[in-house]
Parts: sequence; structure tokens; C-alpha cells
Amino acid sequence: MSDKPTFVLTITCPDTVGIVAAVSGFLTQHDCFITEAAQFGDPLSRRFFMRIVFSSGALTPTRPEFDKLFSLIAARFQMIWNLNDLSRKPRVVILVSKFGHCLVDLLHRYHTGQLGIEIPAVISNHQDMRSIVEWHGIPYHYLAVDKHDKAAQEARLSEVVDRSGADLVVLARYMQILSTDLSAKLSGRAINIHHSFLPSFKGAKPYHQAHSRGVKIIGATAHYVTADLDEGPIIEQSVERVDHTHTPEDLVAIGRDIENLVLARAVRWHVEHRVLLNGSKTVVFK
Amino acid sequence: MSDKPTFVLTITCPDTVGIVAAVSGFLTQHDCFITEAAQFGDPLSRRFFMRIVFSSGALTPTRPEFDKLFSLIAARFQMIWNLNDLSRKPRVVILVSKFGHCLVDLLHRYHTGQLGIEIPAVISNHQDMRSIVEWHGIPYHYLAVDKHDKAAQEARLSEVVDRSGADLVVLARYMQILSTDLSAKLSGRAINIHHSFLPSFKGAKPYHQAHSRGVKIIGATAHYVTADLDEGPIIEQSVERVDHTHTPEDLVAIGRDIENLVLARAVRWHVEHRVLLNGSKTVVFK
Amino acid sequence: MSDKPTFVLTITCPDTVGIVAAVSGFLTQHDCFITEAAQFGDPLSRRFFMRIVFSSGALTPTRPEFDKLFSLIAARFQMIWNLNDLSRKPRVVILVSKFGHCLVDLLHRYHTGQLGIEIPAVISNHQDMRSIVEWHGIPYHYLAVDKHDKAAQEARLSEVVDRSGADLVVLARYMQILSTDLSAKLSGRAINIHHSFLPSFKGAKPYHQAHSRGVKIIGATAHYVTADLDEGPIIEQSVERVDHTHTPEDLVAIGRDIENLVLARAVRWHVEHRVLLNGSKTVVFK
Amino acid sequence: MSDKPTFVLTITCPDTVGIVAAVSGFLTQHDCFITEAAQFGDPLSRRFFMRIVFSSGALTPTRPEFDKLFSLIAARFQMIWNLNDLSRKPRVVILVSKFGHCLVDLLHRYHTGQLGIEIPAVISNHQDMRSIVEWHGIPYHYLAVDKHDKAAQEARLSEVVDRSGADLVVLARYMQILSTDLSAKLSGRAINIHHSFLPSFKGAKPYHQAHSRGVKIIGATAHYVTADLDEGPIIEQSVERVDHTHTPEDLVAIGRDIENLVLARAVRWHVEHRVLLNGSKTVVFK
Repeated sequence: MSDKPTFVLTITCPDTVGIVAAVSGFLTQHDCFITEAAQFGDPLSRRFFMRIVFSSGALTPTRPEFDKLFSLIAARFQMIWNLNDLSRKPRVVILVSKFGHCLVDLLHRYHTGQLGIEIPAVISNHQDMRSIVEWHGIPYHYLAVDKHDKAAQEARLSEVVDRSGADLVVLARYMQILSTDLSAKLSGRAINIHHSFLPSFKGAKPYHQAHSRGVKIIGATAHYVTADLDEGPIIEQSVERVDHTHTPEDLVAIGRDIENLVLARAVRWHVEHRVLLNGSKTVVFK
Repeated sequence: MSDKPTFVLTITCPDTVGIVAAVSGFLTQHDCFITEAAQFGDPLSRRFFMRIVFSSGALTPTRPEFDKLFSLIAARFQMIWNLNDLSRKPRVVILVSKFGHCLVDLLHRYHTGQLGIEIPAVISNHQDMRSIVEWHGIPYHYLAVDKHDKAAQEARLSEVVDRSGADLVVLARYMQILSTDLSAKLSGRAINIHHSFLPSFKGAKPYHQAHSRGVKIIGATAHYVTADLDEGPIIEQSVERVDHTHTPEDLVAIGRDIENLVLARAVRWHVEHRVLLNGSKTVVFK
Repeated sequence: MSDKPTFVLTITCPDTVGIVAAVSGFLTQHDCFITEAAQFGDPLSRRFFMRIVFSSGALTPTRPEFDKLFSLIAARFQMIWNLNDLSRKPRVVILVSKFGHCLVDLLHRYHTGQLGIEIPAVISNHQDMRSIVEWHGIPYHYLAVDKHDKAAQEARLSEVVDRSGADLVVLARYMQILSTDLSAKLSGRAINIHHSFLPSFKGAKPYHQAHSRGVKIIGATAHYVTADLDEGPIIEQSVERVDHTHTPEDLVAIGRDIENLVLARAVRWHVEHRVLLNGSKTVVFK
Repeated sequence: MSDKPTFVLTITCPDTVGIVAAVSGFLTQHDCFITEAAQFGDPLSRRFFMRIVFSSGALTPTRPEFDKLFSLIAARFQMIWNLNDLSRKPRVVILVSKFGHCLVDLLHRYHTGQLGIEIPAVISNHQDMRSIVEWHGIPYHYLAVDKHDKAAQEARLSEVVDRSGADLVVLARYMQILSTDLSAKLSGRAINIHHSFLPSFKGAKPYHQAHSRGVKIIGATAHYVTADLDEGPIIEQSVERVDHTHTPEDLVAIGRDIENLVLARAVRWHVEHRVLLNGSKTVVFK
């Protein structure tokens, strides 16, 4: 752990006296320099959440040694913890159907280095996005869906995800519903963009629902995938004003820009280890 | 119709060729000067909506004559129309319970002339707001609710509204549900502020519902009162970002500021005749 | 003018009685159906602005005849007017340097048909964007700038613009300042995106200026190019919250998303003939 | 320090290894329970900022003892620090001229307990706001300004501020410029609301300046008062969309609502010890 590598430590545990002192004391004692720290004690769930970014120093022990030593503190406070080496880029697999705006937006951020990730694969049930994905030098996996055997396609999809070593799966307007099993398997590491301001307008054609209800603001929601459709923990939402002159098609167009921004933020926060689960909700250390 | 008085003409009718030409031709012909005009043809409902502000000139006929002449055009296009003399201030009756923020906000706008209205009465099922209302020189009607005979209180409320010559009734966090009959009677002239971003979180304690769902944005909605609770045509909505650190009480506090703004806008737009009904939706000519 | 073609008519003239009546009467009389109309009388400049979208009917005269007839009305009211056939796509030439986010965003909107334009040419003083532009099948003109003879490059640029039949030139983070002559030549048909919330932080490195001043909100501004740098008529602005944790580089990254949206809106509104000049300001009929 | 009182500790010092460990270790060791903590290391100024909310326990030493002990740590890290007992309400003196919206807004928040402050005095160079202030039971100090001897009025104002034991002075649209001396004396404890989005439109009539420039968004800025007019450290800003239809008077009206919100937030953050100075900028731990 030499050469000033940088790490993100995330911690979730029951809230009690002395956690910050123990963790920061440990880091100081092992020659680590904290560059960012954020914490939150939820008064309702009595859970404590922490994210610390630190660089290691000359006297910092090796990684295995560090982990062993820190485990003692973790055990004392019943911590769920992760230590992530920032020099390793998270691997993100993107799923897409026919609407390519979120995909293209993520690809551009990836391409220009705004999003510090690897994209080992894009998977789609359509061919539409192959060309632009391959222009970026990324393998495109076309997995057609057979209506009578959706499980077969999902099995192949799951296999590509596994082989890609995906840390995160992003459903960038992927219009297939993941099975309960796959949702469970990807729990906490699959992000979906829903094109409404949840919990309003779940399910199909949310912009048409919004138009029909006559709302004056529309939105989009990025959330972790769970077996309950559109009910997963919300990571980010954003909105835009609309008015009576907008047709459903206008709402779709306005919505695209909101979806891009919301999904890009959620992906960035996730891969920077800023999002911690708090039951069915999220703690986001921006 | 001398001395350059100013009028707002609102029109709703089936969309067809020649409406604007007929109306603007009529106004020009009768020496009226259009200072504002807005129109909207809804491609779905095939209805046409128009709002025109104009000042009359030396050759403009008297009001009864004007109405008689315009009726001919109105009949031709099957118009629902209203002609409002802007020199007459709309009379607004405000209903409130214990939370006074919306009331106080409206009173300040009224007091400083920002809102060109008369407030002939404030009605409440509590005494809390009497002092500040009376400081503004407005009669305060305390109408307690008897749980076992809600109809009796509502009858008295309805009577105060009638006697006040109310053009508009504003439910400024009035925590009683109007009966179907009274909702119908006040149709299109009663505005409620709901403390959520509808259609999310209808009914009771919306900020607690929002907290529990973990949304990242909360809002408020001003809508016309209908017999279906929180289902009336939406006039205005606004939102504010929140995060995991906010308790339900924090959301309530943040929400108060949104409610004030949203309700104040809806009231102003209504009394300036900017809001036209389009089925269960509104056309708002800002 | 058969087959229900659609047109946008824009008008600017001194404000007076009877303009709407004359124009809408003319259109009705010549079998045109108005689908959108917006107008604005500026009480300060005493100028009147109007935008009408209409489809022609069986009895509408041919275009030359229409123009001749309408000229009589135009002359009476001293109108500056334009009649644009919506079936003809505006030709937009894009200028870019090294930062490609605005370009890529516009290309994606163009590619997916969200922006109804032709892009006959992209011009750059760098090679960086050649590949993605050519992937879209658009000619890329690399015009290097010789520090000692900037005029030569601008002359060639101007020539490409002319040959392309450009209706609009978009400076999508083009980091060269246009000469007074070229600015004048392109007056009202060149849009620049400035990466600050004007009039704050004109000139170079606006995000660094914003960081240094400690503002809590940053923004971007799309405006028509004039000889006075960053002083042209503003078409659109948007903003985003920032805080003390953001470095200048973070502001640059956040700013990119604002720039994309603001520029895309300005371009769309311009090519839909929604933007009219009112001295050094704009009237935007959204 | 018994009975679970709660404190806010704020710290500013050079950034180095071990600060969090030292502080949190100290608090844990002295039986204090941290309920909120936020920190920030500025990579540019190399300064470290921290805010900790904690409740004391049975074994926490008395306040003088606590201070003495903590001083040792503070000295080691060259800390500027403050320990604030949350049971003591900050005393806020409000200055106002003729525009009462910000004052009325603050009074309502104070009156309903949303803002945990005392208001020992309101000072004005006009009589307009006397009645509403006295309705709230707050002494109103009318200090007329003699154009030829502004210093005399300021001396009396300064005296009232002193006598009131003011922790904070709020210039709620107070239309007099404080002298360099008084600005210096109140440094870091006087907040002004400027009715523009600084640094745009400093000085007089900012909404008229904004109208004249044709901006599409207007704003307001709360900042600490310094001798340089409108140049003090910015605490909070907010904005609202406007368009070509808005007159300068409309901008003034829209601006009032922005000013209310921005000033109320800045005051709350200040009295909750969330705002730390970082040179000419602020760190705001929301």
C-alpha cells in the first residue's frame, strides 16, 4: 500500500458511541490521510453510515494486513464494510433496447473520461445500437428475446454479465423486466432508469400517464432493481416543468434529457461508492 | 365603457377555422386595443382556448351592448366565454385550520397589494389564526366542527361563502374534506393546496409517506377541488430537493415554503383569469 | 400550397390597433388553419411580435401569390416578416474546437430526429472530433488557425458556411473569437454557448472565476453572436447548484451538462422560428 | 454538562493528518455522543473545516473543564474553534427599510418556532413596519437617517445592536450602506440579502438591470456584509425563470419570493453554526 494509492472505505453498522473515533483513530495510527469523510446516523433505523476517502502512507500496512487489522474494529461495531481501491476502475455492463439516448450519453462520458469506468459489454435485445457501441470499441451482445422462452435469453444475459466481471449492471432504458431470481442475484448492483417521478406513474408509458393527469412537472428516477417493479431504493430523481401545450411526445422528448442526467449521476455515485443502502432507501454521500 | 377600462375575455370552444379572426376583428371594429393575447388548440380534445386582455376606446359600445353584439360571435362558435372588468377586485374567501403559513403568506401579498383581491372573510375550524387575521382588518369566522354533525358546520361555512360574494374559495391547509355537494357547488372556484407532488402521496401525511419511500424530491400541488379527493385539475406544482438527512419534520418545514409559493401562484393566476378548464386538466396562460 | 403544408409566419412591427385582426383575417380568408399563435406587445419598445403556425387549404393561393397579397398588409403595419415552409429542414453548420460534449449532444439529437435539421458541415480548428462526425456521415472541415493570420482561416470558414447554404451557425464551444465583420455578416443567425450565467463571468475560464467568487449556483448562456464578446441577445440560460466541495474541474463537469441542454434548446427554438430579436434582447415563443 | 444538553462544535485549522481522530477520540473519551458530523478539506487553501453536533453524557466534564481540556487539542492543530450550547437561542437583530417582505417572512418563521432564535430588536429608518413588528411583541427602533449626518444614525444603530446582545444582524432589505467601520465590527455576523444573482447586477436597481440585459433567469444572494459593497462571502443563492413578458415590476415581484427563501436559509444556517468562512468564500454544512 505504498505510492499514495487512494481508497474508499464504506461502513454501515448500528449507531453507537465511538465509531468515528475508532475508525479515524485506526486510519491515523496506520499513516492514512483522510481527504473526504461523510457520515450519517439515521435516528429512525438507528443505523450509522460512513464513507471515508483516504490515501495510504509509507507506514500503512499491506492490504491483507490492513484488512485483518480493520476486521477487529469492524467486528466490535458489527460493521458491514467495503474497502475499494480507487486505482481499479469499476466494470459496468449496460443493457439497452431501442431507445439509445441514455446509452449514448453514458458512452460519451466514458469516452471522454468523465466517468472512470470500464464498459466490458453492452447487451441488447435489438440490433439498433450496435454501430455506435462498436465505434467506441465495446463488444455488443445481441440477445434476442423469444416471447415463449424469456428465461433462455435472461440466462445468456446473466452469463455475459458474469463473464464480464461486472461490478454494476445499468438498465439504460432496457425494456425487459428482470426475473425475481436475476433481480435478487444483482441486488444492490443493478440500476434502472424509470421515466417518471416515482412513485407517480409506475409501469408502462409513464409520460402518457403524466399527460393524461395534467401534471405541471415531469421527472425521472434512477433506482436499484428489485423484484418489485419500480419499487427499488431510489438513488436520484430530477424533474422539469411542462405545461398544457406539451403533447405526450413532447414529454417523451423533454424526459430524455432528464433521464440522461439522472442515470449518469446515479451511475457515477454508485461507482464512486457514494450510495449506501438503508433498508428500502438510500444514503447518498454526494 | 369609456375612460380606458381594461377587460379580460376568456373563451373556450370547439377548434375550427376563423376564431381568432372573428374575435380580433370584432375587437378592432369596436375600438378595443389588445394588450395581451394567448391561445391554445388542444389537438387531443379538439377544444380551443383563448385569453385576451384589452382596453376599450372612445367608440367601444356600452357593456350591455358589447355583450349583446359579442353573443352573436359566441353563438356561431359555440363559445363558453367570460368578460371580466379588471377594475373590480375578485373576492377571495380563505379557509384555514391550524397551520397558518399559507394564510399568512396570502395575507402579506394581499396587504402589500401584490395580489389584487378583496378578502371578505377567513373561515376556520380553530381559533389559532384569529389574531393575525383581525390585525389585517378581516372578519374571522370561527366555525367549530362537531364530529357527529359535520354537515351543520359545512352549511354555516357555505352560508358565509355565499354572503361574502366569494368569487374564489381557497383551502389554505384547511384540514376538513368538503362534501360532494359543496365541491360541486364550488366547482371551478375552489382551490386546494395539497402538500405532495400529486399524484404521488394522496391523502394523509404525505411528507411522512415521502420520507418512508425515500424520494429525493418533494413537492406541493394546487388544484381545483372536486368530489374525488386530491384528483381535481392541477393548476400548479413545484418541488424541492431533499436527501437522506431530512426527517419527516424537515420535509414538513421545507414543504411549507413550496406550498406558499404554489398556492400563491395558483390564486393569482385564477383571479387574473389565466386558468381555463380542459376536462380534468387545466390550460394556464401565464 | 396544396397537400396541407405547414408554415411559420413571424412578424415584428410597431404596436398598434388591428394587427391580429388583419393577419388572422387574411389567413382565414385564404383558407389557412392556425394551429399555434403567440404574440407579445412590448410596452417599453412599443414593438409588436407575432408567431403563427398554420396549414394551408385547398383555396390557399400559391406561394408567390400569397407573398404578394400579404405584402400589402405588411406594408400597412410596417412589418418585418418571414414565412417559413416547415417541410424544408434548416441547414445548421456547427463549429467546434476540442471540447466535444455540445457537438456530440447535437449530433445525437440530429441522428435520432429529435432536431429537425440538416448538418451540411462541421468545422473545427482541431482534428479531435473528426471521427465521430464522420461516423454520422457529415463532412468535417479541419481549418487550422495560424496565430499570425487568423483572418485567413476565418475567410475559409466563412466560405464553407456560404457553400453549405447555412441558415444557422452554431458555435458549440468553438474557442476562437469571430471577427467584427463575420459577426456582422452572421448577425441573428449565429448562436454561441457561453459557459457562465451571463452577465457574470464573461471572457475566459468562467468556471474558475465562479469558483474563485464562491457562488452557489453556476450556469450557461446561449446567445446570438455579436461583435461585443458575450454581450449578444440572450436566448436561453440554465443553472445548477454547486457547493464548497466542488473544485473548478467539478464545475467544468457539471457545466457541460448545462451547456448541452441550453444550447440544444436555443438551436431548436431558433430553427423552429421561435426567437425574435427585440433590440439587444430576445422574444422567445416557447 | 448533564441532562443531555447538545452542542455544536465548529473548527477551522490547517489540514493535516489526525484531526478527526483527535477530535472524535476526545469526544468519545469524554462521554459525548456525536449525532451529526461534517468536514471538508479545501485542497486549494489547505484549510480544514469541521462541524460536529454532540450530546454530552454523565461523565462529560463541566463546561469550563471541557474547554480547558479541548484547548490542548486546539492548540496542537492551530484550531479556530467555537463550542455553542444549542439550548441558548441566538439573538438576531433585524434591520429593515420600507420593503417588508423579508422581515415578515422571518417574523412568521420566528413566531411559529421554525427558526429557533430570539429577536430582541428590529431597527428601521422608516415607520412602515412598526405595527406588524409590535404585533409580534418585538421592540421597534425607529432611527431616521439625516442625510447630512449618516454617522449619527449609525452610531445609535450600533448602540441598539450592542445593547441587544446580538449574535447576528440581518439586513432584510435595509437600504442604507453600512460604514466600513461598522462592517468591520460586525464582520462574520451581519448578513445582507442582495436582490440579484451576484456577481451580476451589483448596486442599485438590480431587477431593472436584469430586465435591461434580457436575462432569462433572475436570482437573489445572501452574503456576509463587508466594506466592499455586494462583495462579501456568499452564503446562499437561488434563482427563478423569467421571460420576455416580464416587466421590471414583475421581476421585483418574482424576486421577493426568492429573497425570502434565500435570506431565511442563510439566517437558519448561520444560527445553526453551519456556515464557516474560508477566505472570501463560505463552507456551508447543510
